[in-house]
Amino acid sequence: MTRIDDLPIRDELRGKSPYGAPQLDVPVRLNTNENPYPLPEALVARIAERVAEAARHLNRYPDRDAVELRTELAAYLTRTTGHEVTTGQVWAANGSNEVLQQLLQAFGGPGRTAIGFEPSYSMHALISRGTGTGWISGPRREDFRLDVEAAERAIAEHRPHVVFICSPNNPTGTAVDAETVLRLYEAAQAARPSLVVVDEAYGEFSHRPSLLPLIEGRPNLVVSRTMSKAFGAAGLRLGYLAADPAVVDAVQLVRLPYHLSAVTQATALAALEHTDTLLGYVEQLKAERDRLVTELRAMGCEVTDSDANFVQFGRFEDSAATWRAILAHGVLVRDNGVPGRLRVTAGTPQENDAFLDAVRAVLKLQFPGDNPRTPGRAGAAVAQGPERPVRKENHS
Amino acid sequence: MTRIDDLPIRDELRGKSPYGAPQLDVPVRLNTNENPYPLPEALVARIAERVAEAARHLNRYPDRDAVELRTELAAYLTRTTGHEVTTGQVWAANGSNEVLQQLLQAFGGPGRTAIGFEPSYSMHALISRGTGTGWISGPRREDFRLDVEAAERAIAEHRPHVVFICSPNNPTGTAVDAETVLRLYEAAQAARPSLVVVDEAYGEFSHRPSLLPLIEGRPNLVVSRTMSKAFGAAGLRLGYLAADPAVVDAVQLVRLPYHLSAVTQATALAALEHTDTLLGYVEQLKAERDRLVTELRAMGCEVTDSDANFVQFGRFEDSAATWRAILAHGVLVRDNGVPGRLRVTAGTPQENDAFLDAVRAVLKLQFPGDNPRTPGRAGAAVAQGPERPVRKENHS
Repeated sequence: MTRIDDLPIRDELRGKSPYGAPQLDVPVRLNTNENPYPLPEALVARIAERVAEAARHLNRYPDRDAVELRTELAAYLTRTTGHEVTTGQVWAANGSNEVLQQLLQAFGGPGRTAIGFEPSYSMHALISRGTGTGWISGPRREDFRLDVEAAERAIAEHRPHVVFICSPNNPTGTAVDAETVLRLYEAAQAARPSLVVVDEAYGEFSHRPSLLPLIEGRPNLVVSRTMSKAFGAAGLRLGYLAADPAVVDAVQLVRLPYHLSAVTQATALAALEHTDTLLGYVEQLKAERDRLVTELRAMGCEVTDSDANFVQFGRFEDSAATWRAILAHGVLVRDNGVPGRLRVTAGTPQENDAFLDAVRAVLKLQFPGDNPRTPGRAGAAVAQGPERPVRKENHS
Repeated sequence: MTRIDDLPIRDELRGKSPYGAPQLDVPVRLNTNENPYPLPEALVARIAERVAEAARHLNRYPDRDAVELRTELAAYLTRTTGHEVTTGQVWAANGSNEVLQQLLQAFGGPGRTAIGFEPSYSMHALISRGTGTGWISGPRREDFRLDVEAAERAIAEHRPHVVFICSPNNPTGTAVDAETVLRLYEAAQAARPSLVVVDEAYGEFSHRPSLLPLIEGRPNLVVSRTMSKAFGAAGLRLGYLAADPAVVDAVQLVRLPYHLSAVTQATALAALEHTDTLLGYVEQLKAERDRLVTELRAMGCEVTDSDANFVQFGRFEDSAATWRAILAHGVLVRDNGVPGRLRVTAGTPQENDAFLDAVRAVLKLQFPGDNPRTPGRAGAAVAQGPERPVRKENHS
């Protein structure tokens, strides 16, 4: 049997395994920040209708520039951010991962570097490497918020070509304010003119307004978004960006022609017709997210503030063991490799109850004598064990 | 207004324009090798049904490994090539362009090179450049067939990491035999172990059997395919490959996670249920393709033998002017930048009639005194003018 290493693959891929979260069949899956609410039946019917229309012309290539879809995405952004966005300022691709890959092909690539402030969305580093872009792991504060001064210093020192700011940050949960972005943008332009990418995959769940209006007058600033989370359409793979029209022109120099299928465009357009219903689910999820934060803190967990549809909690001496213990209760959460921490996605109220019950049971087993609710006595907040090697996984 | 060149893009992208064939609204479009037959209504209904099923779980990520789809593709290949192909030997992505991009990310990339024998499918060069892979333009014979000895010499001289063999070759039309592939495979393994990619996008239209059985026992040989042409599903963007399972493992190291949407998987599965009907259209198109060859030759054109659903014809002193003249008759064909030649896709009988009438009218205008049907007097075969710079376009 031939193994990968017998093939003439690139040296840096030798010994690697395919990335990705375990896809396990358990009752409660709260590990990939999926929206727990299935699309409403009216939308399912509309998708079938629009896809059937598209299928009647499926022998033809799709609209290469996805103009209708980009127009509707621009209208959505205009309506929800209060900032007027035009079709020419929007670009779409197969998931925000492909959007980021296209940006890195145009603005990163061999001989260039990108920086992110870690822990953050690990695909930023992976897609950078996949496009031959050198990766710089920038700093983050102990409490997982962005350390603006340290970030400015890192940008000045490394002079990266691309700067990633994930807001709300995955997997930690906190969003940044406009002032932070502006300071890092200035630092990035001073170091060399570099592209600053604000990844707002979880933007709709934030307490803060979108950072999108900052693109105005800043041609090197890009905001990326996705329909995977707020639109409950992870299976659709539709990511998009808003930026100066010149950036949209630039990604068209590197995109694969006809990258976005006619069925994807049709499905996304159908979902955009149902924006109000879908954003209603977002409000429910925000309330559930806040409940998770409150209840986990009441149990004595250390919980990072969250602007997203997930919550980072700890601190565990052995987070891998805790992950397994929670799984034994039928609940799948995520170990993103952040020492002592786990991440849980906000699910339905029933799913969240099952998760909270599981954590309660696990903590009781670990600290049988304690009352984890005693203020000032963090039952779960044990001293952080020796740092395990950070396992790099694609996390969603 | 910001222009692309004002942005911090990579130097090699400066001054470039987005690639792609003109998308013009004309009565007869024979320029992108699309299948002219819309999907049958029964299949459209089945697509709507399967997509609706998928849409009910669209809040979840799709099957990252597309196991059901790869199993059905393997069954299709087994049935149509007579060679048993397993699920583990098949990989699928958004169009064969993405398949090739993933192969180049794993086996090409910075510091590595790829070779193709040009004129050939121009995306091989473009995706190579897009992945930082150096591109080597290998030779082809004057009659556009592969020159095996010259190709062997080029491989020995340049020692590329990836070798592209397009069969049937786009835009010229001819397929290669197994012996040719084996000789180039041996040459590529002798130069260094390199990956040999046989691009069979038009394989179903060929007079020759598929080259797919050659993958057996040759772990560095890959055959790529697409559903765009024979399945009449250019709008679906579904490409796939067959190779040693280790190659499938290798592309999983570089693929974006969840690259293939649930709606794409559902639509492709529906189309595979209707394989027999769709392959019926292929037979009609092969007959029409042969008619185009015969009739163009009868008009005195120089026509390259074709194993595909398109025909390369000429020779024109000014192929751009001839392209425009045919367009003036409402028929869009393709100027791939091959000096003196144009390419026409086999359409419906009516479309092909319109095309042949247009060519007849254009030739009459260009050679009013000649009888272009006189044997031995090639009305269209004028001396080849000074070579124009070859315009590099994505061609499909």
